[in-house]
Amino acid sequence: MGTLKSLLANSTSVKSGLFKSSLAMGIVACISLNAPGQQAYPHHPLDGLSTAEYWTVHDVLAQSGHLTESTFVGSLLLHEPVKDVVFAWHPGDAIPREADVVLTSEGKTFEARVDINSRKLEFYKEIPGVQAPISEAELNAISEIAIKDPRVLAALKVRGITDLSTVACEPIPLTFRVFPEEEGHRIGYGDCTDQHGAYHAWGRIIEGLYILADFGQQKILKVIDTGALPMPREDINFEEADARARPGTTPLTVSQPQGPAYTISNTGDISWQNWHFRFRLDPRIGTVINQVSYQDGDRLRPVMYEGSLSEMYVPYMEKDAGWSWRSFLDAGEFLYGGLIKPLGADDCPERAEFFTGYAPSSKGQPLRRENLGCLFERVTDNPAWRHFENGNSGRMSRELVLRSAAVLGNYDYLLDWIFQQDGTIRVAVGATGVVETKGVKETHVEDKMGVGPAEPSYGTLVAPNLMAVNHDHYFSFRLDLDVDGAKNSFMVDRMVPQTISTNNRTSIWAVQPSIAKTEKEGMINLDYKRPAMLTFINPSVHGKLGYATGYEIMPAATAVPIVSPDDASQRVGGFSLHQMWVTPYEPEERYAAGTYVSSSPGMQGLPEWTKANRNIEDTDIVAWYTLGFHHIVRLEDWPVMPTLWHDFLIRPSNFFDQNPVLTLPHQP
Amino acid sequence: MGTLKSLLANSTSVKSGLFKSSLAMGIVACISLNAPGQQAYPHHPLDGLSTAEYWTVHDVLAQSGHLTESTFVGSLLLHEPVKDVVFAWHPGDAIPREADVVLTSEGKTFEARVDINSRKLEFYKEIPGVQAPISEAELNAISEIAIKDPRVLAALKVRGITDLSTVACEPIPLTFRVFPEEEGHRIGYGDCTDQHGAYHAWGRIIEGLYILADFGQQKILKVIDTGALPMPREDINFEEADARARPGTTPLTVSQPQGPAYTISNTGDISWQNWHFRFRLDPRIGTVINQVSYQDGDRLRPVMYEGSLSEMYVPYMEKDAGWSWRSFLDAGEFLYGGLIKPLGADDCPERAEFFTGYAPSSKGQPLRRENLGCLFERVTDNPAWRHFENGNSGRMSRELVLRSAAVLGNYDYLLDWIFQQDGTIRVAVGATGVVETKGVKETHVEDKMGVGPAEPSYGTLVAPNLMAVNHDHYFSFRLDLDVDGAKNSFMVDRMVPQTISTNNRTSIWAVQPSIAKTEKEGMINLDYKRPAMLTFINPSVHGKLGYATGYEIMPAATAVPIVSPDDASQRVGGFSLHQMWVTPYEPEERYAAGTYVSSSPGMQGLPEWTKANRNIEDTDIVAWYTLGFHHIVRLEDWPVMPTLWHDFLIRPSNFFDQNPVLTLPHQP
Repeated sequence: MGTLKSLLANSTSVKSGLFKSSLAMGIVACISLNAPGQQAYPHHPLDGLSTAEYWTVHDVLAQSGHLTESTFVGSLLLHEPVKDVVFAWHPGDAIPREADVVLTSEGKTFEARVDINSRKLEFYKEIPGVQAPISEAELNAISEIAIKDPRVLAALKVRGITDLSTVACEPIPLTFRVFPEEEGHRIGYGDCTDQHGAYHAWGRIIEGLYILADFGQQKILKVIDTGALPMPREDINFEEADARARPGTTPLTVSQPQGPAYTISNTGDISWQNWHFRFRLDPRIGTVINQVSYQDGDRLRPVMYEGSLSEMYVPYMEKDAGWSWRSFLDAGEFLYGGLIKPLGADDCPERAEFFTGYAPSSKGQPLRRENLGCLFERVTDNPAWRHFENGNSGRMSRELVLRSAAVLGNYDYLLDWIFQQDGTIRVAVGATGVVETKGVKETHVEDKMGVGPAEPSYGTLVAPNLMAVNHDHYFSFRLDLDVDGAKNSFMVDRMVPQTISTNNRTSIWAVQPSIAKTEKEGMINLDYKRPAMLTFINPSVHGKLGYATGYEIMPAATAVPIVSPDDASQRVGGFSLHQMWVTPYEPEERYAAGTYVSSSPGMQGLPEWTKANRNIEDTDIVAWYTLGFHHIVRLEDWPVMPTLWHDFLIRPSNFFDQNPVLTLPHQP
Repeated sequence: MGTLKSLLANSTSVKSGLFKSSLAMGIVACISLNAPGQQAYPHHPLDGLSTAEYWTVHDVLAQSGHLTESTFVGSLLLHEPVKDVVFAWHPGDAIPREADVVLTSEGKTFEARVDINSRKLEFYKEIPGVQAPISEAELNAISEIAIKDPRVLAALKVRGITDLSTVACEPIPLTFRVFPEEEGHRIGYGDCTDQHGAYHAWGRIIEGLYILADFGQQKILKVIDTGALPMPREDINFEEADARARPGTTPLTVSQPQGPAYTISNTGDISWQNWHFRFRLDPRIGTVINQVSYQDGDRLRPVMYEGSLSEMYVPYMEKDAGWSWRSFLDAGEFLYGGLIKPLGADDCPERAEFFTGYAPSSKGQPLRRENLGCLFERVTDNPAWRHFENGNSGRMSRELVLRSAAVLGNYDYLLDWIFQQDGTIRVAVGATGVVETKGVKETHVEDKMGVGPAEPSYGTLVAPNLMAVNHDHYFSFRLDLDVDGAKNSFMVDRMVPQTISTNNRTSIWAVQPSIAKTEKEGMINLDYKRPAMLTFINPSVHGKLGYATGYEIMPAATAVPIVSPDDASQRVGGFSLHQMWVTPYEPEERYAAGTYVSSSPGMQGLPEWTKANRNIEDTDIVAWYTLGFHHIVRLEDWPVMPTLWHDFLIRPSNFFDQNPVLTLPHQP
């Protein structure tokens, strides 16, 4: 996340070929999971809010006098019914519908809940000491004030910048307590860019000029000028790069002439290869997968009640005063049209089906966003299994991909939920977009070995006068597994070295299983020297050999924080201190860093909730897995970064009695 | 690796549809990279041995009296010319050709080298204290002796087994010094299986009966009977599983009507999307990629001189006397028709091109093996990059996959070299096949939580009386990177916590780069708390901003040994003690656990070579990366395991001056 200028301008434009090509194949190109259509909408208690529902919420708030001119909506989300209500609900029943709204007015924060069916304001209350997510309107307002501030104008003039038509000054929220001014105030900090000569402002930072602003009072508090640096001038118009086939490229085409092999029912149930699930597109956390189950013979077996991203923590690693505050909690701190942004024709294959979603405007009105999600089957060209024994046997595989893209200003993250035929869900994050850059005086690396502009270094010089700053990415996923039912336990199969003395062998490892009884026992720190298999089991359901049925969360490449846990930034990303947390299901515990992540004292969310060290054995539990990576930028990551994928698996472990893909067809 | 019965019987059969379907598309379906064709073969000093060359080697050895009736060939491989010779060679020049042969006769081991062009035996010498890789003929011979041994017959009779037609008793090599009998002898140890009621013997172990044999003397030394256990009877005929589409499955087809977008020249040079490389199919280590370079504008830039698997270490973690010896070095200990086995129609897509290779027979004659490798382009359905900024931009990607499959009796490993358009090579290992099982008395897990048959446990009960034993997999890859030339350095960018005090922030990390000067400095132990970026740079070649050009080896999910480094088994897999080693290029240093891995004292290969702690700075260096994973078996892994993928990246890092895929076409 960096500056936000023009992120949403023309945001609904998509390449015109997108619909045409899909439609030409006879596939409904754009299904609105969240919009009222032929059938009454919503269809299910976990569906996203419809246009009509947004307006009901808006009108109830307006009529109760809570939407004044100075009020901004920071969040407007479906308030999920508790699980028991959802379990008791059946199609045809009245659908419970509520919305949670966070509002801000003159620096104060308010929470409201609206019962949609009865058009009733259930509560409206001030929440002291917290800050609502920032809205587009607030950012625009402060930008307009900043650019007129005489101190800013003077600093720009010193730098020779007098044409203000291409300059944007954008204080953005602070996640941790950087300045004393944050105490009790809605404070932003930021810098200016000059888009002159480009069509976007990434990499056009006016370094050395920083603005402290009060969003609540709509006032510039301080303008700090640490001295001018040269404007980086390298071409950054990457979107104008030629699009040309490399020599010898021939068409490579995937077709599905009989249409997709998944089905989406009239009421939004998705079925594919024994999988069943629903999803909605949430403005804060993107795709929320619900009621994932697997048809195993006659049994429709629950696997996961809900799975979604919960928060993202992206701390930058620069000590300069203009930079050390940069630490983002990208899901919770910005409303800004919703976390996920529309997908384009280069994001999903032509055969994909696209889904429309809604996000609230700064005034709580619905913004319709086409193409917020896409769904497609993928050819893996990989065997689901194989064995060579007097010749070959095996089965090829395919998979189902549900994709969205979180866009936080500069950075883009592809967020994929990939359903495999073998009962595994692969969750993949593809980092791409534009890395965040700082203006520097260096134009060239002078060190003999060319290892960096300085040692130790805080970034990589990606262009003259432009350094991409070292940073981390942490993604917390909230995974409400319900393996064969809601009451589960968390089993840690620790691999423990054991001394033996047979056959001249002296050391092996053995599996020491344990059930985590409390939240503290459920906190897992990954360590190559202390490996463990992490499984969510149903202690009441056993397979044919007696094992409790289970689903394993299998980490892959990841990273853990290496800075001090007491650091003010690290504290707001406190969920990253453990790679796995397990909590008892508590409907209001949804966001790993807490609901309010601006100017936070830190250690909110998971670190706070788990202080109670609650029981997690044989009860309804929720897994929180954090995927991370450190990022030292390469020149190859500039001006836009080749997609770097990370993933983890949610996979059956003694859930089936044997390999569930034995009987796949040879044609995948 | 387990018992080997019938691994190669009918091994050349492939589904007849394989060729037909490819040919119907007008693609040459089967190209023999290693066989003489229309053009004179070999074409290049690094090509595999041709049929004629095998026979030359065979005849030279025979004529010199070294192929007696009691002689078995354990290895017969191309002896690569040293790099300087290859660099100096040009098409049209005479091609230097030599072969290295390992022979065994009456328990003694011999090495020979033959100059093929001059048909000259360069040397033939006994190598004391080592054992040659085991050949099929030796295993067959000892099996025939074992099954007639009265002690074996008595032990079988006690178990009620009198029909010997389905029984196989197969002592196999020992990697570490398990028994005193191994001192100076060629010793095998193993058990018997009874295939009755199945068409293969995996999971039909006659537990409790173990046979110690001397391959050299062709003699059974000991028969150990620790008592009968019930024969597991569960259906294991997985290859007979129905192949049926799941409900709703519709065709999903990839086509490339204009043929592949790669080219293979008459002399075996492969070009695709700026990549250029060659490969051969080696009997010991499988696919060997050579002279990988990238066309960057006018410059054809070297990246990797050679890349291949080097060794596999698979230790089992069982303390019972019949099991604690099981520890495999799967590349080095078996000749057995070559490490890689033919691919079938379920291993590669229809559009793939297949390659023929050769392996030596137990008598040094060429065995022609069709379909040892396949090559195809893959649709990724993933953007090479994307960014949302006033609408979307991005480019879709495709990739090139070169696949082979190592088959070690029970286990199958798909070994993929995946070339990406962005200059990255992804090396992926897909583990599938049949997990190794032990007969046990348990038929059911009795523990209340169903967490295992015993605590601590050594495996998973996958069927009544059948336990899949815990184990590890370690794959050492030898990567002779030559980034912009042969002289490279190994740069470790260590991320180091740093205390700061700006803006209320107290702790960040910074990059502390260092050049590893010696082999000891080049040994890397992965540790989440001490992360580093691992890059091979050319200190003499700098990009436009001054950085030394480089390629990074980026680990992904992996595991490290947790047993004692002094354990006799762990010692033979000593290369796994560090995840990265860097050595100066030394032509004879090819196998991470040493050339001879049977009855080894351990700490051969990398641990031995690096004792000299040689200089690795600004010289021709070789990277050795070990990918590992621990394996606690799931029920889902039985009777054949769904493919579990692990990978790592070899990717440009400041090699290009900017993102090399900016200009890809929108149609990938």
